[in-house]
Amino acid sequence: MDNPLEYSFEEIKIGLIHNFEVGIDEELTKKFANVSGDFNPLHMDEQYAKETKFGKRVVHGMLLASFFSRLVGMYLPGKNALYFSQNLNFVKPCFIGDKVTVQGEIIDKSDATKIIKLKTSIKNQEGKSLVEGTSQVMIR
Amino acid sequence: MDNPLEYSFEEIKIGLIHNFEVGIDEELTKKFANVSGDFNPLHMDEQYAKETKFGKRVVHGMLLASFFSRLVGMYLPGKNALYFSQNLNFVKPCFIGDKVTVQGEIIDKSDATKIIKLKTSIKNQEGKSLVEGTSQVMIR
Repeated sequence: MDNPLEYSFEEIKIGLIHNFEVGIDEELTKKFANVSGDFNPLHMDEQYAKETKFGKRVVHGMLLASFFSRLVGMYLPGKNALYFSQNLNFVKPCFIGDKVTVQGEIIDKSDATKIIKLKTSIKNQEGKSLVEGTSQVMIR
Repeated sequence: MDNPLEYSFEEIKIGLIHNFEVGIDEELTKKFANVSGDFNPLHMDEQYAKETKFGKRVVHGMLLASFFSRLVGMYLPGKNALYFSQNLNFVKPCFIGDKVTVQGEIIDKSDATKIIKLKTSIKNQEGKSLVEGTSQVMIR
């Protein structure tokens, strides 16, 4: 566990980017199912998933979305974050064994409210976009 | 672990509601931090959180959002869900010890795309809204 970055509102510039990689394995998927309570067989049952058009288990989209919590709370802006909103579009399926890159880019900041706006994305090892969206975060 | 419901597109009616309760404890918060990698001290460090305006640790908003994965994957529509999008507004803080009610209500359905739209909300034990948003889900 690393310590979070500590950007102040003044230090946040439009165009600033942070990203990190996460390997998606069986264990992480099980942990997320236990936390969320989502045991849908498309995520959890290999036999069932094999019969669907995906051909194998699909990783919970919301597991990927949880990495935006890390992005905001550890990197952009890190320690002083107060998460206001997040829009999520689940664009393509993620599979067990994928290595994903989570990225945030500052696209706006408001002096009046101290709210920063991020473009957020998660791509797989082939560079294909899996999750897209935007975040609004206040800096305390 | 219960089996998911299995609503077909035809069975989904506007106004249909499902909800469930979740008790938010220390253990669940730790598990979410480990899954997401978000160890921001506002969530994880009691001493630090005491000095903030919240006066105690705030539960990750995205932990609450993970319950929408359960709502969609287990209840509305359950087994045949394909999660398309989710908007999240983090309205009020959730604290360890809170008991939250997660609710989804069908507000629209499209015959052309088989996509259903849900109004989603999470309230605390006092009925105060913590997270609000909408989901779009395709029924396979």
